Amino acid sequence: MNVTEILAENIVDFPLDEIPEAALREARRSFLNWLGVSLGAANHPSVDILIRLAEELGGNPQASILGRNLKTNMYYASLINGTSSHIFDFDDTLLNTVLHPSAPVLPALLAVAEYHDLTAFDLLASFVVGCEVEQRIALTICPSHYRQGWHITGTAGVLGAAGAVGKMLGLNKGQLINALGLASTQPTGFREMFGSMTKPFHPGKAAGNGLFSALLAQKGFTSSPHSLEAARGFCRVTSEDPDFAYLTKPWENSWLILENTYKPYACGIVTHPGIEAASRLKKIHRIDPRQIKNIKLDVHPLVLELTGKQEPANHLAAKFSIYHCVAAGMIFGNAGEEQFADHIVNSPEVIALRRKVRATLDSRLKEDQARLVAELTDGTIIEEFVEHVVGSKENPMSNEQLEEKFREITKTGLDFERQNSIISAIWEMDRKTPVRTIIALCQ
Amino acid sequence: MNVTEILAENIVDFPLDEIPEAALREARRSFLNWLGVSLGAANHPSVDILIRLAEELGGNPQASILGRNLKTNMYYASLINGTSSHIFDFDDTLLNTVLHPSAPVLPALLAVAEYHDLTAFDLLASFVVGCEVEQRIALTICPSHYRQGWHITGTAGVLGAAGAVGKMLGLNKGQLINALGLASTQPTGFREMFGSMTKPFHPGKAAGNGLFSALLAQKGFTSSPHSLEAARGFCRVTSEDPDFAYLTKPWENSWLILENTYKPYACGIVTHPGIEAASRLKKIHRIDPRQIKNIKLDVHPLVLELTGKQEPANHLAAKFSIYHCVAAGMIFGNAGEEQFADHIVNSPEVIALRRKVRATLDSRLKEDQARLVAELTDGTIIEEFVEHVVGSKENPMSNEQLEEKFREITKTGLDFERQNSIISAIWEMDRKTPVRTIIALCQ
Repeated sequence: MNVTEILAENIVDFPLDEIPEAALREARRSFLNWLGVSLGAANHPSVDILIRLAEELGGNPQASILGRNLKTNMYYASLINGTSSHIFDFDDTLLNTVLHPSAPVLPALLAVAEYHDLTAFDLLASFVVGCEVEQRIALTICPSHYRQGWHITGTAGVLGAAGAVGKMLGLNKGQLINALGLASTQPTGFREMFGSMTKPFHPGKAAGNGLFSALLAQKGFTSSPHSLEAARGFCRVTSEDPDFAYLTKPWENSWLILENTYKPYACGIVTHPGIEAASRLKKIHRIDPRQIKNIKLDVHPLVLELTGKQEPANHLAAKFSIYHCVAAGMIFGNAGEEQFADHIVNSPEVIALRRKVRATLDSRLKEDQARLVAELTDGTIIEEFVEHVVGSKENPMSNEQLEEKFREITKTGLDFERQNSIISAIWEMDRKTPVRTIIALCQ
Repeated sequence: MNVTEILAENIVDFPLDEIPEAALREARRSFLNWLGVSLGAANHPSVDILIRLAEELGGNPQASILGRNLKTNMYYASLINGTSSHIFDFDDTLLNTVLHPSAPVLPALLAVAEYHDLTAFDLLASFVVGCEVEQRIALTICPSHYRQGWHITGTAGVLGAAGAVGKMLGLNKGQLINALGLASTQPTGFREMFGSMTKPFHPGKAAGNGLFSALLAQKGFTSSPHSLEAARGFCRVTSEDPDFAYLTKPWENSWLILENTYKPYACGIVTHPGIEAASRLKKIHRIDPRQIKNIKLDVHPLVLELTGKQEPANHLAAKFSIYHCVAAGMIFGNAGEEQFADHIVNSPEVIALRRKVRATLDSRLKEDQARLVAELTDGTIIEEFVEHVVGSKENPMSNEQLEEKFREITKTGLDFERQNSIISAIWEMDRKTPVRTIIALCQ
């Protein structure tokens, strides 16, 4: 089976005009979420370093670095914006592969669309295609690929970026086969890098390399026609049991982007049900933290395996502490990036409350569920059960919740009016919207 | 064991001044060979494409593209020169891992040395270090890494480039650990790409990514401190049985570069003994091809497994035909890039002679041996036995042979006097030679 050829054919042949509105709507939601987390992290030290290097190396001013009033060439813009969008670990997720679909693909498309002055429809429709490509690749090679230690967002993402940019630029089938070959031979990212600046660098490099692959292929660079299925090609070398059916089955206008999910909280998904339950104590019951005698939390077993740190000392450690997460949720009614700042993690109020939390595993609970029982100092008992946490497939974040997340995460860089202009512009993205007008709003 | 830390420490701590002259001499030989094959391929279509893309993206004019009178930034210069040096498959080889050590490392060092106006000693000594790093990595992960399908020159090469550039720029231990981490998370190259432009792109991208990793680390970018040895890090994910002793044993001033070998012929090493035997018919016995009735060639079994094509139709196929190789060796006394041109492969004289060649495997022969028996039309029998082919460890190419190879491969771009100036300058490379003077000679 010529798997690579079939995939390239599907990408080339599917008419963008036939992508249904539901998929475009999800692409707008993905874009809003992605833009927010990118702008929010635009001043992170790792972005500063990447920009200093891009400036040292130089490049034609083709595409914007988000939130920085700077332009660089398409390659570095993709790399830098792709990195910033994954810094907070707050981007979107396709849950069954843990692929973060926007970070490696949208930055590459945005750079090309800005440079060539394309429309928002071009961006959205190409993103639907890129998301389809990377998730089909991810499904083909998972679970063994991820289990071995590969960071799927970098390794499948580069193929999504190459496919999406190739579609946006109108590559023909032969060129697209070569673009996929070039992308496949550059898998970026081991999970060992989690916890360092190199983790968000993975989707950044995937975006840059995917773009670079498509541009080289457009100009006639050649690769293997069997890069995906060959014995010594990408899928078989990096997966024990690739299931090529995901790549060969026809594209029947039912798009994987419809399964995209968004995080309400800036930490691992497993903690979210606990945070949501705790936040209800503040939001619904209006409890003051000093009223709490103790909190008993029943959670899915994975929660303690992944986030069992009882006394986190800093920002990063706190993201792996269900105790901190619950305390933050109770005190602030939220667990955004701000609630993981070092000074919050080490504040006496937070420390006091997190020590009152006891987490118990309950194997009957699903991953998106939690049960919280709070005992107050006056003896009152409050119980909250989260059946499907916000951000799960069954209970997706609403547009309003995505807007609120965007506002919260971009508030240091953008005033309220500007935020509203951007949000409105994103909901109205279509064939009449030049991508450049949206980028201009973000500067 | 903190493998990554130990490797970084060895790189940082070893004083370049203590590298012995024998290693520097081998580095000069490697440089001459590498420069020749790079200049020789400088006008290949794949280089044209890379340059067109580099020009579209733009970059500060920091480093030269060899043979093109063009400058671009260090990143693209590394990528482009690294690619051109592997196009002919005519570069150097460390035989026990099949690693081509120069292509991923020298271009990165050359770019940095040109930009920072460093000396030839800086270049040579850093190359000795880079070669040590990449070959120790290769030994650690081979043979299973290569067998699985990875192109070792791209995957180990990027670490050599990062280590060498890091040494040249004086990175401290912490920075070097991060440079190795960034490099290790970007392994480039599957063997499936062999036969397409993407094969030489692998060392090119390794050079560029290795340089990029070192520059990011210099500016403070962070990575895992255990990128090489961790369960979900580079060596364990891409090798079944990594032997970390290669990375942890002390650097005792016995350098792996001393094992470097150079190809006299522009094709796979297994064909070389047959070519050498055939070339003796012309060079020693002065036989005219029309005098040949038949040629019987006894070869190591690998020869027929890898290069058994009887009727090659074009340039690339001919490189996998021992029959063409022997015919070319007999008729031209050589098998350089020129002797694999399509019009030579399809010339009646060559076709007629290759059909008179019969190859038989003889498992008693070693890989660097061949036995040829030619029967002439007048009944004369000529026998030639190649005990150790030129270019093998036991019979390395002499300086004069390397000079001759350089002259042959660069003859369309450089006149004889210029060739001699470059060759002399390379043999005299030392602390007083600015790298820029050598680059200027190549323009």
